[in-house]
Amino acid sequence: MTQPLLDDTHDPSAQSWVESANAPDTDFPLANLPFGIFRHDFEERPRVGIAIGDRVLDCLAAVRAGLFNTVDPAVRDALTSWTLNPLMALGRSDARDVRRLAHRLLQAETPEGAKARALADDVLASTDSIGMRVPAEIGDYSDFYASIHHATNVGSMFRPDNPLLPNYKWMPIGYHGRASSIVPSGTPVRRPRGQSVASPDGPPTVSPSGRMDYELEIGAYIARGTRQGDVVPIARAEDYLFGLCLLNDWSARDLQQWEYQPLGPFLSKSFASTVSPWVVTLDALEPFRVASFTRAPGDPAPLPYLDDAADRARGGFGITLEVWITTEAMRAAGAPAERLSRGDFGTMYWTLAQMLTHHASGGCALRPGDLIGSGTVSGPDRGSRGCLLELAWRGQSPVTLSTGETRAFLQDGDEVTLRASCEREGFRRIGFGTCAGRVMPALA
Amino acid sequence: MTQPLLDDTHDPSAQSWVESANAPDTDFPLANLPFGIFRHDFEERPRVGIAIGDRVLDCLAAVRAGLFNTVDPAVRDALTSWTLNPLMALGRSDARDVRRLAHRLLQAETPEGAKARALADDVLASTDSIGMRVPAEIGDYSDFYASIHHATNVGSMFRPDNPLLPNYKWMPIGYHGRASSIVPSGTPVRRPRGQSVASPDGPPTVSPSGRMDYELEIGAYIARGTRQGDVVPIARAEDYLFGLCLLNDWSARDLQQWEYQPLGPFLSKSFASTVSPWVVTLDALEPFRVASFTRAPGDPAPLPYLDDAADRARGGFGITLEVWITTEAMRAAGAPAERLSRGDFGTMYWTLAQMLTHHASGGCALRPGDLIGSGTVSGPDRGSRGCLLELAWRGQSPVTLSTGETRAFLQDGDEVTLRASCEREGFRRIGFGTCAGRVMPALA
Repeated sequence: MTQPLLDDTHDPSAQSWVESANAPDTDFPLANLPFGIFRHDFEERPRVGIAIGDRVLDCLAAVRAGLFNTVDPAVRDALTSWTLNPLMALGRSDARDVRRLAHRLLQAETPEGAKARALADDVLASTDSIGMRVPAEIGDYSDFYASIHHATNVGSMFRPDNPLLPNYKWMPIGYHGRASSIVPSGTPVRRPRGQSVASPDGPPTVSPSGRMDYELEIGAYIARGTRQGDVVPIARAEDYLFGLCLLNDWSARDLQQWEYQPLGPFLSKSFASTVSPWVVTLDALEPFRVASFTRAPGDPAPLPYLDDAADRARGGFGITLEVWITTEAMRAAGAPAERLSRGDFGTMYWTLAQMLTHHASGGCALRPGDLIGSGTVSGPDRGSRGCLLELAWRGQSPVTLSTGETRAFLQDGDEVTLRASCEREGFRRIGFGTCAGRVMPALA
Repeated sequence: MTQPLLDDTHDPSAQSWVESANAPDTDFPLANLPFGIFRHDFEERPRVGIAIGDRVLDCLAAVRAGLFNTVDPAVRDALTSWTLNPLMALGRSDARDVRRLAHRLLQAETPEGAKARALADDVLASTDSIGMRVPAEIGDYSDFYASIHHATNVGSMFRPDNPLLPNYKWMPIGYHGRASSIVPSGTPVRRPRGQSVASPDGPPTVSPSGRMDYELEIGAYIARGTRQGDVVPIARAEDYLFGLCLLNDWSARDLQQWEYQPLGPFLSKSFASTVSPWVVTLDALEPFRVASFTRAPGDPAPLPYLDDAADRARGGFGITLEVWITTEAMRAAGAPAERLSRGDFGTMYWTLAQMLTHHASGGCALRPGDLIGSGTVSGPDRGSRGCLLELAWRGQSPVTLSTGETRAFLQDGDEVTLRASCEREGFRRIGFGTCAGRVMPALA
């Protein structure tokens, strides 16, 4: 695993000439500088951007203005691309150079900052006049199941006699998702229709899903790719991870229960999966690393290929994750969004490095821009459960909202917003922005 | 469903000026004309090709020579692309125009044929001096499980008390595969390492898979795409299918058994999946259509969204499928390849149209170039079982080869070749070419 890497970019006293980046509650201070792909309202061409406060550094414009003249030409080319794939493919060290230079360009007190500030009208975009895209062409999307709390809760509903299967503590369980399902935050999500059953053996009926749910997840983009047949030692796994985002793996529980045996979830997951548009680099997350999950006495130790001293010591990330909801009635009443849950990514049974190493261990090729989902992030207590299926316990304990409405599952018009942030004494708070989607009625 | 469409391209008496295309046993007579992507030995750039006998019509060269001047400019552009995606995206009717024109260009007795023949040195490539590629950028790969014989056989091994799950006869069961796993015929396939168990509850050990297997499947490429949220009525499903290929969904059965619950196969399938390089269009397959599978008395009728009179009458394809093997010892002894099985795609419980319509029914976006696998094609008798797991019945009845060697699962050095062909009185036999791969030893 990459050694701890705290540098000037983590200095909490650094001030930006972009005023909004100095506000204590911004998700995007100088210490963050996440990458994304945006489009100006006035043109079709997507551009690489770096979020700073409520503005975006337009990398194409910045390259044209000469602000990135000191980086390698290949890196400059990547910054003028239409997707983040070329930057991801270059690997973490080149992305680190870009982030460090962006830190100087956006700082108030540096010569680079003075030069950039003079060009602000050309190189800074306002978030009002741009649209955000899925940041990479995602070749493949895989989704893991790395929260033991989630796996145990859901397992106890679907298989009461056998909640946690014997393989769970030995390998990060995952499955192949659908890359075409990925949409950027803000995209409306249509309720799927499909087969579901009233009794376990059928017969099924076809109707709009009556058990539509969200899943609170962290997504991770692949940086360097692997060739088919290659494996990745766990000590080097994080070299292959570019950065993280929020991921809402929308699920239709009634469709899922009927279809998922024996080959896993299919249409119950592939109608839409929403990502937050900004990719927070592992470098920005460096101050917020935590030890990996402490296994219970009696749990098996990770097998050697999944075990690494540095991963044990600091393979986790202390990311606070929240789910917020507004309903039609709440919006009509002018009521604020309401928080459904609050969890911590540090409670995951498997680390991202373990997921990546396991994924590649059989020779599966990972390509730059591929997306890995963590699986629903649920903690040990009720308030940290990352989906409605768990929060309302399969509909048995519906959640009551401020309007008096209850929710066992999502209703049309419900808007779900995921948020994430990292805080630690002595460092600037950083955030992930939002990952939002509103449920649209099913097709007639 | 598209109405029957027999035209001049199905005329068995048409002769090509490419002599090898007139041989009775060629897979690629004038009546076939499958599309593929090839690369000349002398350049990197991939090109669209159309197979004819033992030659390939080089579409880039043919466009440059003016042979495709009568087709729409968008179609001409698609023929000069690096992948088949643009041609697929245009839809079946444009691809039909190309195939019809290619039929005239390659015929001995037409004015177009005379013109093309005069340019043969420029527009015909020899299969000796080219390499074949995966024909499309595959955005997503999904794999079905549409043979009831396969599902029942495998189910009885993994779940003796419950071989065929209650959902099987109600929906085409499928799962998301890994697009990055797809390789073209001829690519060596490395035996994966991974976790497996001696007893169902573990503990697992990590080793090279000891139960490596092939799976004989048909693959189908998506033509027109769907937008997220759209559905496809079954009567129009085949408008979305460009053509078919052979697919070997290599599987590591020991890894699969341990990992597949509850989310389905993952690393046991994603190390490699081999496709044959030539895409046989549905138009070429038109004479070989058959009725869909006759359900047993007592089986449920398909739900309305999966039921269509034309699909029942002619939604199947009478394609004979074969698996051949050579081992190191066979090659050393100069022994010929040996046939392991012979089956018929017409025995599938679900049609391709039903698979496609079900896939889109929840709103999952299908993109041009996406690949759908049929699942292992196994018929009712032993000789038509499409994988070693079934043929050797989980190792209990190993297959004996001509060399005296036995096979319960694949050994290093084994080369598996899939073949397929269609024959019917009054029509030219057409074939799919080969889908081959040799097993390489696992990494040390």
